[in-house]
Amino acid sequence: MIPGPTPVPETVLRAIGRHPIGHRSSEFQGLVKRTSEQLRWLHQTTNDVLVITGSGTAAMEAGIINTLSKGDKVLCGANGKFGERWVKVAKAYGLEVTVIKEEWGKPLDPNKFKIELEADTKKEIRAVILTHSETSTGVINDLKSISEHVQLHGNALTIADCVTSLGACNVPMDEWKLDVVASGSQKGYMIPPGLSFVAMSDKAWKAYERSNLPKFYLDLGLYKSTCLKNSNPFTPAVNLYFGLEKSLSIMESEGLLNIFKRHSRHKDAVQAAMKAMKLPLFAPETHGSPSITAVAPNSINAEELRKAVLKNFDILLAGGQDHLKGKVFRIGHLGFVNDRDILMAIAAIEATLKSLTLNEAMPGIGVAAATEILA
Amino acid sequence: MIPGPTPVPETVLRAIGRHPIGHRSSEFQGLVKRTSEQLRWLHQTTNDVLVITGSGTAAMEAGIINTLSKGDKVLCGANGKFGERWVKVAKAYGLEVTVIKEEWGKPLDPNKFKIELEADTKKEIRAVILTHSETSTGVINDLKSISEHVQLHGNALTIADCVTSLGACNVPMDEWKLDVVASGSQKGYMIPPGLSFVAMSDKAWKAYERSNLPKFYLDLGLYKSTCLKNSNPFTPAVNLYFGLEKSLSIMESEGLLNIFKRHSRHKDAVQAAMKAMKLPLFAPETHGSPSITAVAPNSINAEELRKAVLKNFDILLAGGQDHLKGKVFRIGHLGFVNDRDILMAIAAIEATLKSLTLNEAMPGIGVAAATEILA
Repeated sequence: MIPGPTPVPETVLRAIGRHPIGHRSSEFQGLVKRTSEQLRWLHQTTNDVLVITGSGTAAMEAGIINTLSKGDKVLCGANGKFGERWVKVAKAYGLEVTVIKEEWGKPLDPNKFKIELEADTKKEIRAVILTHSETSTGVINDLKSISEHVQLHGNALTIADCVTSLGACNVPMDEWKLDVVASGSQKGYMIPPGLSFVAMSDKAWKAYERSNLPKFYLDLGLYKSTCLKNSNPFTPAVNLYFGLEKSLSIMESEGLLNIFKRHSRHKDAVQAAMKAMKLPLFAPETHGSPSITAVAPNSINAEELRKAVLKNFDILLAGGQDHLKGKVFRIGHLGFVNDRDILMAIAAIEATLKSLTLNEAMPGIGVAAATEILA
Repeated sequence: MIPGPTPVPETVLRAIGRHPIGHRSSEFQGLVKRTSEQLRWLHQTTNDVLVITGSGTAAMEAGIINTLSKGDKVLCGANGKFGERWVKVAKAYGLEVTVIKEEWGKPLDPNKFKIELEADTKKEIRAVILTHSETSTGVINDLKSISEHVQLHGNALTIADCVTSLGACNVPMDEWKLDVVASGSQKGYMIPPGLSFVAMSDKAWKAYERSNLPKFYLDLGLYKSTCLKNSNPFTPAVNLYFGLEKSLSIMESEGLLNIFKRHSRHKDAVQAAMKAMKLPLFAPETHGSPSITAVAPNSINAEELRKAVLKNFDILLAGGQDHLKGKVFRIGHLGFVNDRDILMAIAAIEATLKSLTLNEAMPGIGVAAATEILA
């Protein structure tokens, strides 16, 4: 129950355990062709979705360095570990970064973006970079509204880290006019880590033409031209591709709306359980990520609870990152997760809490609250 | 029988098909610790070997951009597709490149490196970049001698693409004083593509401190500091790590010397067979790669032969790349390959040749020549 690597269906694992095939073979080209179509479906886009062998960070970095040039002005939303990471990436490449900061656990304020964008009458801001679902805090940011402000600005691109939102909630790339959408395999995709994905709008490809940041392995122009030939510029992680095709087929069978509903129900159920157990949610209830719920218990060290749940029940919860270590634990409900997993995790947390703190909350109260939501 | 993805042992595939575990778990840290020790053994080095989720190109690019700065002078050996690729990478990052060129199929001339390095009395050359085993042509370059010339120069680094030499022939990093050694999982490692490896000497790490090329996902400083904690800076391809541990254990059981002998025998056997069949070797016999033999048949289109071998025998040979397409086919004998595979491939080529060209060479003559070497 961590936000990645997420659980992997048995059939996907079996596909991954196949013997690899040549990545220049016609069999593999067929696989690339089929997954390309599936990926467009998942992104709700007509753009090509490019596949990089690498982590989500590689995809996000690719989105940034393929559309921008040294000295370009960008706005970066930072309300958690990943938002802060994109600030670091942007600075590493010499971009001029204005950070739109919020405390960890609070959502980004779209209005602050609006103000900065409206004040930029010279249209110098080249991109707005932000994280949709902030995995470190369980906050979902209002990507749609922020993208609308970027549209009104006209010149800037919206570069979105959708690593833990894509395949969990609605991220209609074309409808929301997102210019770069980055994601990673070990999340909503339900496959192990190692592949990452980046889709770019026509506007982003125009920006690619003038981008002067040096790159080679992450040069998306190379991925685009080989993608058109159902191939890859560099040897890809062939076995993870086998899993990708299988998992995307499973997702197609379930359907996008059903996937989104399932994640939303699970988020609601976990929130309800934590409230019933009097465990404070770290993010505002209205801005809870569909993929992960962060909980800040005040009666117990979060790491102690997490370790006891692992020891007693062999259930891995995620800990707090950086300064949140010990203060927060996080329940992943992303990807291949069903109602049974949700109730199981809540029951295990209840039992562990009781054993550690003699918490007055009667075991069962969280499960009952979650059950009501799931019913 | 292609030079990558190479055959993968069944036990390695089974390891890869396991359910992933959390990459921040103590179980995974143990895995990183064990594989780090195994990787040092394979590289014959005391340096840390860093693991990147990406292709061999990512590892090689990382070696270049972590040790050099914009405008640095470098010598780049180019006698095939991969050597030429490193020229492109170096130029993409604004390095000042002197190309030491040889025709495809010819080995690099160490003396040309010596002359350039000796002429550089101002010691401005910062690195010599070259490919040890040139996969596109089946040529092994004399990395040892070239590295000796670099040592005499004193200031420059030796940055070596050992993607199809490491785990196939002797590449003693410390003894040869190589500064950067890059490799990839789908080669001698006997696991599917998706992981790549880069080891750096102390001298290379000193160069890292002054390197000003922008990077983040490929910033090896991040990999080094997390490696010391048995971890990774970004979510790694966990399942391929499972395979890595297993395959390196298999390699340890066989022993480095035996691995090198096996590859050398197979190279000799394939060369002898091709000569007996009157199929010209593309590389000089004395500079044949231990991993791959390129053959330039003059009586038949190489692609036609390759397709017929695939159709008739379900054996995939590699084709010629770029301008060699149709002129050359390549027999991979890299990684998990045994004597049976060698004889089988030769017999299949003989039978196919006979059916296509009514070649006067009696089927069996190549197999006989190879058998004599293998005996």
